[in-house]
Amino acid sequence: MNKVRLGIIGAGRIGKVHAASVSDPSVQAVPMAITDLNRNAAEEVAARFGIPRVTDDASQILNDPEIDAVLICSSTDTHSDLICQGARAGKHIFCEKPIDYDLSRIDRALDTVKKAGVKLQIGFNRRFDSNFARVRKAVSSGEIGTPRLMHIISRDPAPPPIAYVKVSGGMFFDMTIHDFDMACFLIQDEVEEIYAAAGNLVDPEIGKAGDVDTAVITLKFKSGVIGTIDNSREAAYGYDQRVEILGSKGSISTGNCYPNQAIISTGKEVRRDLPLNFFMDRYAESFANELRSFVRALVDNTPTEVTGYDGRVPVLMGMAAKRSYEEGRPVKLQEFAAAVAR
Amino acid sequence: MNKVRLGIIGAGRIGKVHAASVSDPSVQAVPMAITDLNRNAAEEVAARFGIPRVTDDASQILNDPEIDAVLICSSTDTHSDLICQGARAGKHIFCEKPIDYDLSRIDRALDTVKKAGVKLQIGFNRRFDSNFARVRKAVSSGEIGTPRLMHIISRDPAPPPIAYVKVSGGMFFDMTIHDFDMACFLIQDEVEEIYAAAGNLVDPEIGKAGDVDTAVITLKFKSGVIGTIDNSREAAYGYDQRVEILGSKGSISTGNCYPNQAIISTGKEVRRDLPLNFFMDRYAESFANELRSFVRALVDNTPTEVTGYDGRVPVLMGMAAKRSYEEGRPVKLQEFAAAVAR
Amino acid sequence: MNKVRLGIIGAGRIGKVHAASVSDPSVQAVPMAITDLNRNAAEEVAARFGIPRVTDDASQILNDPEIDAVLICSSTDTHSDLICQGARAGKHIFCEKPIDYDLSRIDRALDTVKKAGVKLQIGFNRRFDSNFARVRKAVSSGEIGTPRLMHIISRDPAPPPIAYVKVSGGMFFDMTIHDFDMACFLIQDEVEEIYAAAGNLVDPEIGKAGDVDTAVITLKFKSGVIGTIDNSREAAYGYDQRVEILGSKGSISTGNCYPNQAIISTGKEVRRDLPLNFFMDRYAESFANELRSFVRALVDNTPTEVTGYDGRVPVLMGMAAKRSYEEGRPVKLQEFAAAVAR
Amino acid sequence: MNKVRLGIIGAGRIGKVHAASVSDPSVQAVPMAITDLNRNAAEEVAARFGIPRVTDDASQILNDPEIDAVLICSSTDTHSDLICQGARAGKHIFCEKPIDYDLSRIDRALDTVKKAGVKLQIGFNRRFDSNFARVRKAVSSGEIGTPRLMHIISRDPAPPPIAYVKVSGGMFFDMTIHDFDMACFLIQDEVEEIYAAAGNLVDPEIGKAGDVDTAVITLKFKSGVIGTIDNSREAAYGYDQRVEILGSKGSISTGNCYPNQAIISTGKEVRRDLPLNFFMDRYAESFANELRSFVRALVDNTPTEVTGYDGRVPVLMGMAAKRSYEEGRPVKLQEFAAAVAR
Repeated sequence: MNKVRLGIIGAGRIGKVHAASVSDPSVQAVPMAITDLNRNAAEEVAARFGIPRVTDDASQILNDPEIDAVLICSSTDTHSDLICQGARAGKHIFCEKPIDYDLSRIDRALDTVKKAGVKLQIGFNRRFDSNFARVRKAVSSGEIGTPRLMHIISRDPAPPPIAYVKVSGGMFFDMTIHDFDMACFLIQDEVEEIYAAAGNLVDPEIGKAGDVDTAVITLKFKSGVIGTIDNSREAAYGYDQRVEILGSKGSISTGNCYPNQAIISTGKEVRRDLPLNFFMDRYAESFANELRSFVRALVDNTPTEVTGYDGRVPVLMGMAAKRSYEEGRPVKLQEFAAAVAR
Repeated sequence: MNKVRLGIIGAGRIGKVHAASVSDPSVQAVPMAITDLNRNAAEEVAARFGIPRVTDDASQILNDPEIDAVLICSSTDTHSDLICQGARAGKHIFCEKPIDYDLSRIDRALDTVKKAGVKLQIGFNRRFDSNFARVRKAVSSGEIGTPRLMHIISRDPAPPPIAYVKVSGGMFFDMTIHDFDMACFLIQDEVEEIYAAAGNLVDPEIGKAGDVDTAVITLKFKSGVIGTIDNSREAAYGYDQRVEILGSKGSISTGNCYPNQAIISTGKEVRRDLPLNFFMDRYAESFANELRSFVRALVDNTPTEVTGYDGRVPVLMGMAAKRSYEEGRPVKLQEFAAAVAR
Repeated sequence: MNKVRLGIIGAGRIGKVHAASVSDPSVQAVPMAITDLNRNAAEEVAARFGIPRVTDDASQILNDPEIDAVLICSSTDTHSDLICQGARAGKHIFCEKPIDYDLSRIDRALDTVKKAGVKLQIGFNRRFDSNFARVRKAVSSGEIGTPRLMHIISRDPAPPPIAYVKVSGGMFFDMTIHDFDMACFLIQDEVEEIYAAAGNLVDPEIGKAGDVDTAVITLKFKSGVIGTIDNSREAAYGYDQRVEILGSKGSISTGNCYPNQAIISTGKEVRRDLPLNFFMDRYAESFANELRSFVRALVDNTPTEVTGYDGRVPVLMGMAAKRSYEEGRPVKLQEFAAAVAR
Repeated sequence: MNKVRLGIIGAGRIGKVHAASVSDPSVQAVPMAITDLNRNAAEEVAARFGIPRVTDDASQILNDPEIDAVLICSSTDTHSDLICQGARAGKHIFCEKPIDYDLSRIDRALDTVKKAGVKLQIGFNRRFDSNFARVRKAVSSGEIGTPRLMHIISRDPAPPPIAYVKVSGGMFFDMTIHDFDMACFLIQDEVEEIYAAAGNLVDPEIGKAGDVDTAVITLKFKSGVIGTIDNSREAAYGYDQRVEILGSKGSISTGNCYPNQAIISTGKEVRRDLPLNFFMDRYAESFANELRSFVRALVDNTPTEVTGYDGRVPVLMGMAAKRSYEEGRPVKLQEFAAAVAR
């Protein structure tokens, strides 16, 4: 395969990001077609990035013999079905997270992918951020010895609209899912037990909608590593994403990301500008990197860097966190029969 | 009271620190006598700081009409009795932490102090560190709004000898007790429930001695604030003491403390020297400040900044943490009848 | 003008960078043709970025009626002639720095541009770096009050080959020229007098080749601001680019740039990875931004952000620095008749 | 000598600091007497630090056989005479900087000290700051290789009263003198040539009083190292003292000093508190350390760490800086006959 011929399903915010990434001349891929329920959106993206074909119908892309791989950027409820259709049609698949919120639907999708023998990559873009990649490398290389304690800080600038909160699947699935993946990615081990302390400290409306907005989730890994995830739907100063790991030989930690490094000292304070406030700015590079990684896996015929299994684990962890919070006790992942099955 | 006349009970490491602090000419106090089971140690400190009287017998100090206040720096098992004796003799008391590991003994001491109408300050010196004091001020002043999440990192450079571990009362009482106090000091609220995830990741010998060496303790405050304490008996790079609070209007965090601010950039890395490695260096200023605060409370006849009640709470929290770890579940402080009683 | 049709003269390192920048779908430009003395190099870049035409002859690009603007990325000795040819052919021009080392040739080029009424932008890409742009904004907005002192640190990781040193025009023209531009860009004032202290501390071979490798250049601006430029052909830890300005209301400073923000603490030191070591990495964003700015100036018909005059000033400053170093005295820019003439 | 018996001449601000330092029980010294033209000031200090004798007359201290050493903390114009008197009386001498502004008077004092065979230490306290000491160590140990470039930033929070400016000897003598010493201390080499660019950017009244308030001073060392000193009589954000050295193997730099390490992130900015604003706070530790060093040199009979010659050099450098500024040219230290003489 010389240039991967891609079809894009979904022309929303994230579809646009991926369309831009694959249009980079240094990426060995060429976008062939794009589809969206909102045809205007698809037309606009096609025009901007010179994508030759636009269609209303995802199946046209999934069945196009001139297309090697599809990027699934549509709404979450369509992911697992599209994965199945794409796999059956022999397409390699890049799918946005989460695969689904239902383990059986996830498993059906993963089975279909396995049988079809196609490649699947899940959109955990943060793995491709230079900071987090560096932390993982410190663990892999033994630079900090054997990990013992891990902390993830992951805070959004402001809560989403209540209408969104109601359909989001809840903070543990909508927001923490990225952090669950990050925890496994960094420690390179499986989580056995989860304890979620959470509450409504940001906005009582979120509570009325049945969700929490503030949480500390404790993870116990099989190796004995103890980790925490700090989640808040609101941080006055903006988006905040940091990690820290203590190992037997030392620690590694990453600070938040800023638009510039300027320090201003005045008669009142020593200050810098607010951090990069939007995940699209903060993770711009990682979005481009994950697509490059996916294309490279196809061109070189190597495994993808984020597998379907990697996409399944955080959903299971979300289920355990939810139950832990609801029942006020630590919950083992083994409690979920489906988990044991795999 | 113009100059507070002090007696020092205990001439060990911490007794020496306090003897130096009260010898500072800018402190309105004068050390009158010192005692230690090891008379040589007491003689040595007396000579160095010009303390006129040395005795083998603490009761000589406790009953000396020329002494206004005593600093109890002896071993933990003697604290509550000495507090009672001192209080009955009408002495104001500065006592090292912890008061005791037994709630009934603590309560007896606090009752005696109360009846005697003397002042009591417990040696939670970290409250007087400029970094932590600044964090508390940010909470008190509303600078970061209403607190929501709190994290304390508290790691020792290396574990104590196993012989010490066996008599230490366990990590939750010996080490976390400082962090329990810090949590209450910073958030200025009471803790309702504690969940302790812990294990032996540093040294299996510590486990054999019946203790843990690594822990993450989750705290739920009455106000809903969720906090964590990260404890490790070993950090390869040295002593590490940091805190972070997220509030409704922003966050405040403090970094670790270093002997200098020099940054060296070479062909291999950009680096700085290791942090202040010993708690006596790291907290030198706070030890001096706490004594100043105690003397000031006597001279000005104001309440002490760390009360007997402040000394009782962390012991209760340690009991909850221990039970939580042993039973693998969150534990409410109310489970301890004695706690409810006060 | 909807999409600017561009011709690229020079397919070397910097030509490739600009070819990539203008291939970005979000830039309103389309590369039409490329030329290089080394036709293979031009072919390769054309293939990579889908540039339709390749030619051996720059004049074919300069005279192509379907081309609106040219990017001059060839060797310095060809710049002024190509500017003249392009201007006469009515092309807008983006030209790499420096325009030339000879004031009369620069002036001839600027006059030709002026008469032709075309736009000219000089490739001082660092102006488009987010850090330096932020510093300039602090000056422009009055955030730090009236500037008083300014420092620029500008160090290369390693000296160029001696063969290059011999034809480079000397460190003041080859390296400091960027810093001279930065000084004027940040302070937004003209320099009156220059004093250059310099020497050979890196490599005596550079001295034998008639050049210096280490310098501190003091600048006196008309407004009284005093500035320094620190230049070294070698910094063991890598590329280093920082600025600091002290004004009446405060200061602003920028640190060096790193590939990640991870801090590793071990038993030996607290360290981070080395800075971004290559100017192509360090300034990747600023190269893209300067091309965007040029294209925008053409599309919107506004003045370019870096004018021909901006390209002339640093050459004059280089002449003064050279004379100052050779004669061991401060040199006023007025000493150069040509300078006064404009 | 077991405990050095000290007399203190001058009970002003700096006299008080030294009185406190020598009262520290861990210093092998005992203050015996204090004198000041203002007897009340001397009485007050004596009472506070338990100094037994107070006198109006410095010669009583200088001739007291029970006094081993004197601390000269009186006004600059009295320094050289007091040094001579003290030396003739066989006292070891600690003298505040500068020795004098007149080379011949300095030389007379140094000759007298030499003949008397007593020890002399000059009060360049900054050498004893942990940051600057660390930088010097990096040079001495070869950690950064051979030095090439050096920068000192030294800014005061606000200019002194005009009345003081008039008698201060000028900024180069009053303020830069510390930085001249620091430059020599860090690079451990002699300066050959000085170029001072300076002006009145802070307050025109300072100019009317015949002084400058803003300067960049370029130093050329014998070894070829090029250095700069950045001086400002005003920095809106407070006291600012930093250094940076680039050597063949790397660089070392120190940041400014702050009262705490807390970082506050709000919806407006990420900030920290202002730096330690007063030299007494910033250098508290270094003042104590220099007295310790002096006492140790007496007790151990070793050379003092800051010699009379070290006190002479910065005055000579001040003279060169002044002439350079007045004549607008680089000035070699050899221009001063007296300099050559030694």
